[in-house]
Amino acid sequence: MMKTDVLVLGGLSGISAAISCKRHYPDKKVVLVRKEGTVLIPCGIPYIFGTVGGPENNVVPDGLLETNDIELITDEAVSVDKESRVVTLKNETQIEYSKLIFATGSVPLVPPFPGLDKENVFVVKKEFGYLKDVLDKVNEAKDIVIIGGGFIGVEFADECRKGRDVNVTVVEMLSSCLQMALDDEYCEEASEKLKETGVHILTEERVVSIDGGKKVQAVKLASGKEIKADLVILGIGALPNTNLAEKAGLELGFRKGIQVDRYMRSVSDNNIFACGDCAARSSFFDGKPSGVMLASVATSEARIAGANLFSPTHHNCGVISSFATVINGRAFGVAGLTERNTKANGMDVIITRAQATDTHPGGMPNSSMLKVKLIFSKDTGIILGGAVSGGKSTGELVNVIGACIMHHMTADDIVKFQMGTHPALTSSPIAYPVVTAACKAIVPIKGINK
Amino acid sequence: MMKTDVLVLGGLSGISAAISCKRHYPDKKVVLVRKEGTVLIPCGIPYIFGTVGGPENNVVPDGLLETNDIELITDEAVSVDKESRVVTLKNETQIEYSKLIFATGSVPLVPPFPGLDKENVFVVKKEFGYLKDVLDKVNEAKDIVIIGGGFIGVEFADECRKGRDVNVTVVEMLSSCLQMALDDEYCEEASEKLKETGVHILTEERVVSIDGGKKVQAVKLASGKEIKADLVILGIGALPNTNLAEKAGLELGFRKGIQVDRYMRSVSDNNIFACGDCAARSSFFDGKPSGVMLASVATSEARIAGANLFSPTHHNCGVISSFATVINGRAFGVAGLTERNTKANGMDVIITRAQATDTHPGGMPNSSMLKVKLIFSKDTGIILGGAVSGGKSTGELVNVIGACIMHHMTADDIVKFQMGTHPALTSSPIAYPVVTAACKAIVPIKGINK
Repeated sequence: MMKTDVLVLGGLSGISAAISCKRHYPDKKVVLVRKEGTVLIPCGIPYIFGTVGGPENNVVPDGLLETNDIELITDEAVSVDKESRVVTLKNETQIEYSKLIFATGSVPLVPPFPGLDKENVFVVKKEFGYLKDVLDKVNEAKDIVIIGGGFIGVEFADECRKGRDVNVTVVEMLSSCLQMALDDEYCEEASEKLKETGVHILTEERVVSIDGGKKVQAVKLASGKEIKADLVILGIGALPNTNLAEKAGLELGFRKGIQVDRYMRSVSDNNIFACGDCAARSSFFDGKPSGVMLASVATSEARIAGANLFSPTHHNCGVISSFATVINGRAFGVAGLTERNTKANGMDVIITRAQATDTHPGGMPNSSMLKVKLIFSKDTGIILGGAVSGGKSTGELVNVIGACIMHHMTADDIVKFQMGTHPALTSSPIAYPVVTAACKAIVPIKGINK
Repeated sequence: MMKTDVLVLGGLSGISAAISCKRHYPDKKVVLVRKEGTVLIPCGIPYIFGTVGGPENNVVPDGLLETNDIELITDEAVSVDKESRVVTLKNETQIEYSKLIFATGSVPLVPPFPGLDKENVFVVKKEFGYLKDVLDKVNEAKDIVIIGGGFIGVEFADECRKGRDVNVTVVEMLSSCLQMALDDEYCEEASEKLKETGVHILTEERVVSIDGGKKVQAVKLASGKEIKADLVILGIGALPNTNLAEKAGLELGFRKGIQVDRYMRSVSDNNIFACGDCAARSSFFDGKPSGVMLASVATSEARIAGANLFSPTHHNCGVISSFATVINGRAFGVAGLTERNTKANGMDVIITRAQATDTHPGGMPNSSMLKVKLIFSKDTGIILGGAVSGGKSTGELVNVIGACIMHHMTADDIVKFQMGTHPALTSSPIAYPVVTAACKAIVPIKGINK
């Protein structure tokens, strides 16, 4: 029987967890088992269909494993015996571990529409060969229907239109695309940008069936509408991939994620950890279960899990939820809570907005208008969330806000922020929108002039 | 006699201070007195000579004053009587104030070279008409010599080469350009980028005289070299502009900056505040006097001064020093201390480096390699500084690091950072260099494996 100190099951967050373990415990032997020969960059998957040209250009380099002295086994774990601490692979290899990490990710959520089994109906699996096939079919398609207007849905729609003479329609159940992620004004801006590419958006529409012969021909909606379709992509979300964990007798929590403690240890077994989309999560803010699935969360959890393996001392602070997307060249991002979230939570908040060009003067090349919205607790002045739309700097500006949230900064703290600026790289120092929005919050927080 | 609650003397940080005052004290009357009809964006000045095309495209919009109900008087304050709280202007107008803010900025540092009075020898004044004249002369020049290889010098050099068939030479006293701002490896990278534009760089060279007839013809160096020059720009630094403050009897400190307390109040008079380059500063780290002059610092001080006018409760934490520059399309930035600074301070530090493309996969369009260096205290694990070179996201990534420094985050905190990522906007979540560099610091900080 093979023996290892640490056995990691899974993909991207598995790599992060394994590297983290080797950093903290360089003498431990770490083995990573995964089904896929090649691991795709999850957030890069939509870009396979346009910008980067194919799955072969969206691969996580395995060099990371070699550099960090992590042994890779390409196989599927089929059972875990936690009493004897042995994992059995499909090829019947048995591996004895001291510590086991589940990083098995998520599987696409597939609602029970009739007609899902027709040809040219796809879900978004993170599998190289599968996606190569989807790409070939997208290249032949004339009428693509994307079910679900979340990130994956709108990014796919945007990419499918790139260099292709194809009808693309997004069908969304809610009253706008991206509504689970962004506040109304940003949803509106994003939808406008997507429409400019020629993508059709149908909102408040439910799919009742996927119709056709052997191959899909149409998507039928509850409103009675029927949309012509020779290819359908389902992008309505994902669920924790925890069949194996359940079989092993680990306690599952919210949405069947593996129940973990603050150290990312399974509550059922101190020698088993879980991180990434397969772990049950709770919110940084209210501590309640969170269905958020983001690389920002998964990789943070992975680093924490790896660090805690032989000395559990690193707390996971819970899901902040920081992310960004790009639609037709315009970037949108959020860190922390949206206005919608704070309302649903019954929080008394101060919301402020500011905008400025992301260069200064605005006449510098490649200038975009940067719009920022910040949300503060009325009682404490602590920042709860921020949203940004703008150009290329949007991604890192979201992370500036994320750092402020993680450390419970107040509007007062942000007012004092010494932000580095440069004409070609940032907004002007007297109009830097994150700071201006914080400045605007001071008066209402303090109740001045009220 | 005119009366006002608040009188602000000065340019850019004056505007910031005035706006901050109106935010905190909306009922107070605020008057801003400045010499210039038009205020230039200070950091945009080099770009007048290339990218933006002229000073008229690099102006701070006065709309900000109107919107915030701030009265503007274009004149020069010539005396301050702090006992009677009256400022007299050149046109003999007298203004009585309750609170006075000095935001008079800096003046170029001009060493006593013989020949400074020759035609076509310029310093970097923040004056519209003056710079318009410099631009006209630059457009006619054949051989430009820039004395001083700091930010201003290298940015000018880069811009002067844009669209012009002109020889540009930078003369620097130290062993490389930007040595006061960046560590050696970044100085080297920046110098290489600048040389690629055709700019000549002479290091370890001291100017002894500026030669010629009525007009400059050459610059003579201590090494004996003589460089042909029909135009010379001096960019070797600036000093606080505090003649008026000195005359008013205010105590001056380091480099003759106005001595202020933590609330940005002049130590000589509780009714007089100072902010921006005219104020004496101390370091965020060791509290010692700091000669740093940056928009990031000036505008933070201005916001703090404005907030404290009628209730001094907001502390200035001192100079962190966050900035960025762009040389030949490559961005360089620093937040906090450099390795050079920590060595000079005798600090026991851990220095780590990480790099990754600023998109993921690297094949996304407009991808640049992002290089990050972080410096942590060996004892406490607290971050002391960070340096970045990369593409457009460099500016805001410096601000992510700045936020971490301002709140004394440790390497452990940064390891847990939930950074939002996106293929087109940021590095990959498993290779995000700020986090990777923090991860690498953990082992040496904890003394593991040592």
